[in-house]
Amino acid sequence: MGSVATEQQPKVEVPVPAHYATLKTDSKRMIATLDAACQWGNTPDGGMDRLTLNDDDKKVRDWFIAETTKCGCSITVDAMGNIFAVRPGINNDIPPIGIGSHLDTQPTGGRYDGILGVTTGMEVLQTLHANNITTYAPLAIIDWTNEEGARFPPAMLASGVWAGAFTTEYGHNRTDPDGVTLKQELERIGFLGETPCTYEANPLSAHFEVHIEQGPILDAAKEPVGVVKGIQSIRWYHIDIVGREAHTGTTPMDRRSDALLGAAQMIVATNSIVTTGELNARQARATIAVVNSLPQSINTIAGKVRLSLDVRAPDDADVAEVDRLCRLRFAEIAKKHGLKVDIDCFWKSPALHFDPVMVDCVRASAASMGCTMELVSGAGHDSAYTSKHVPTAMIFARCQDGVSHNPAEYTEPEDVAASAEALLGAYLRYDDYLRKKTEGKL
Amino acid sequence: MGSVATEQQPKVEVPVPAHYATLKTDSKRMIATLDAACQWGNTPDGGMDRLTLNDDDKKVRDWFIAETTKCGCSITVDAMGNIFAVRPGINNDIPPIGIGSHLDTQPTGGRYDGILGVTTGMEVLQTLHANNITTYAPLAIIDWTNEEGARFPPAMLASGVWAGAFTTEYGHNRTDPDGVTLKQELERIGFLGETPCTYEANPLSAHFEVHIEQGPILDAAKEPVGVVKGIQSIRWYHIDIVGREAHTGTTPMDRRSDALLGAAQMIVATNSIVTTGELNARQARATIAVVNSLPQSINTIAGKVRLSLDVRAPDDADVAEVDRLCRLRFAEIAKKHGLKVDIDCFWKSPALHFDPVMVDCVRASAASMGCTMELVSGAGHDSAYTSKHVPTAMIFARCQDGVSHNPAEYTEPEDVAASAEALLGAYLRYDDYLRKKTEGKL
Repeated sequence: MGSVATEQQPKVEVPVPAHYATLKTDSKRMIATLDAACQWGNTPDGGMDRLTLNDDDKKVRDWFIAETTKCGCSITVDAMGNIFAVRPGINNDIPPIGIGSHLDTQPTGGRYDGILGVTTGMEVLQTLHANNITTYAPLAIIDWTNEEGARFPPAMLASGVWAGAFTTEYGHNRTDPDGVTLKQELERIGFLGETPCTYEANPLSAHFEVHIEQGPILDAAKEPVGVVKGIQSIRWYHIDIVGREAHTGTTPMDRRSDALLGAAQMIVATNSIVTTGELNARQARATIAVVNSLPQSINTIAGKVRLSLDVRAPDDADVAEVDRLCRLRFAEIAKKHGLKVDIDCFWKSPALHFDPVMVDCVRASAASMGCTMELVSGAGHDSAYTSKHVPTAMIFARCQDGVSHNPAEYTEPEDVAASAEALLGAYLRYDDYLRKKTEGKL
Repeated sequence: MGSVATEQQPKVEVPVPAHYATLKTDSKRMIATLDAACQWGNTPDGGMDRLTLNDDDKKVRDWFIAETTKCGCSITVDAMGNIFAVRPGINNDIPPIGIGSHLDTQPTGGRYDGILGVTTGMEVLQTLHANNITTYAPLAIIDWTNEEGARFPPAMLASGVWAGAFTTEYGHNRTDPDGVTLKQELERIGFLGETPCTYEANPLSAHFEVHIEQGPILDAAKEPVGVVKGIQSIRWYHIDIVGREAHTGTTPMDRRSDALLGAAQMIVATNSIVTTGELNARQARATIAVVNSLPQSINTIAGKVRLSLDVRAPDDADVAEVDRLCRLRFAEIAKKHGLKVDIDCFWKSPALHFDPVMVDCVRASAASMGCTMELVSGAGHDSAYTSKHVPTAMIFARCQDGVSHNPAEYTEPEDVAASAEALLGAYLRYDDYLRKKTEGKL
């Protein structure tokens, strides 16, 4: 479980440069930084409620700027409110290596999702600063705006704008449930920056991200951190099923076109497709999590049902196979009950395979700590967008029982510290790789 | 299909009295009366929209009073607005034999549900009047208020008050979606009568009701009318299923507590229980027609699902057996997925077996027309309440494809006429039975 083979990765030697070999993160400082980042928007149940660009988000942004400035960073805020805290390197002609994630949370979120990624970046920064080390490339610690999308859908909005997936205008015009636009809120809290939000105008050399796994694999394997090799292939569907409304009391069982019975059989069939055989072995996942039926009347057979379907697998081909099998089974079920079924695939996100050198840097760093588990992320992250344009890799930290988007979200202090340590090693390796590459020494 | 054996019925000889033997209903007049009753509240699609106590309902009530008065009836309106148009008999010391149904409709209803029952009663009345016949007992043609419950839930409200199932105060205080009470509307349209709405203050000797089947059995068997022996045993349930919310992308298939997958298996299991074996043979029906899941998020496994369950069978014992099997299967499914399941039976309506003599009168009348199909009603009707206190029976008229509560609801003119003819014969038989019984001649 957990480790999934993707394509063959080219291998590059990525040793920690000898002069950095004794450099260590400080676990107490790391925990203190994480605690400090949770001062604003925390909830009595131990969770967080810090919707993007609200007053608490402004406070944590101000704190982030103050803390990174203390470590010699200059601050760039772009047109989507993304904050780049940049520490100069030896060669400032190349773009900084980014370490980023997000400080916004779900309305009933936890203390680790996103916050861990920004604060482990801050710990790397503080480690360099405390040890007076100037790295080869500049370093940018990044707070990406509105990763959650909980206030302004969609998720990963501002890293998406940076990567060119959305225009800045689209991002600015997103509205929250009260009709307030994202741009209005950026202006209100003073975070509408002048730097264009594009990877071209404000480039990076690479992007690292630490994130809690949000799944139970590392916890089950008792591994503090894992190497993330990429992000699953995903397809999202709406399935509309139309039967015939009829009276539950007067309509014989064999004369029905029961849309909900058909939907139930489709839910069971979908589960069966990915829990048996090769697709199960290759970690395909298919979930129907949303159902709505009409009319909502206890004594009228459901005439219309809409389901959502979420299909994922490390490989695109497996997602396509789940698609094929679902269509086949759904058509059989529809035929049996005289139903009309319409399957609309409204979103596809192909599998992402992170940059091989970046992954090797994470792999080598994790291995030096005795951690060898490799995973494919089941969720989207800001790194999904950065990977479109710059070498990207991620490190997962174990989270208890895989619980996330919940006040009970928890990562042990030792695992928080381990993830910062793994990040430092990976980052230093890639900084050295960049030096060698730039100097033509590879 | 269709005919279901219930308990053994005692047989009484119920011949049509010789002096009535040539009496016939008039099919043209019958259709004209039905058309006239649909003058108010009809819709361009051929259906009806006449919510109880609205302006159209007032107009059809005024028409009903005018037409029945022409046939020598005196009018009693009770405190729930039920209208009793009473034609005197030879013996006015005994309560009238009632023939009733309702003139209100669903908002997207048809021309037959309820309206057929009142107008076939009017046709019996007009036949007697045209032929100058004085029956033994008085005859009451009844328009029961708010049978549909579409404006003022629950359904069958005013016959329920008459039968003592609800108080008049309860009935008066029902509100429509605009907050208007039923009593306010009775006052507004001038139908708040002074006669107490109780079977004791305003009694009947018996109650006949013609109704469209609202199911496909007669249509499939090509039978114009059917003998209704009673009303199915019914139980309604809420089923609450609690699992564990988790990310669809990060949670392995074997580590889930998916409430919607469990719910789907329960829907499939419920269907299987009544579509196989003895329960299927004995016409048990079980339907899950309503589902709601939380959270409504495509990438969060459903943590909570609520289902409704509607179980029916001609016999109480079969409903109890479906209950037992569902609980057994639901518990197995819940255990398999680590779900919590709570089954709440919030309404029980035991099987109703109509009065054996009344049913024999219907049976004999239908048989004289060559119709021998016997059914158990799957839906509730005003007759369900009247049967609690007075001998009651029903006649079903064929409706096309079993479609009801729909503008497409349709009964052929020949079947409309046949149902009136069957009613006349049944009514005359029971009137004679009452005479013999009162005179001590049985």
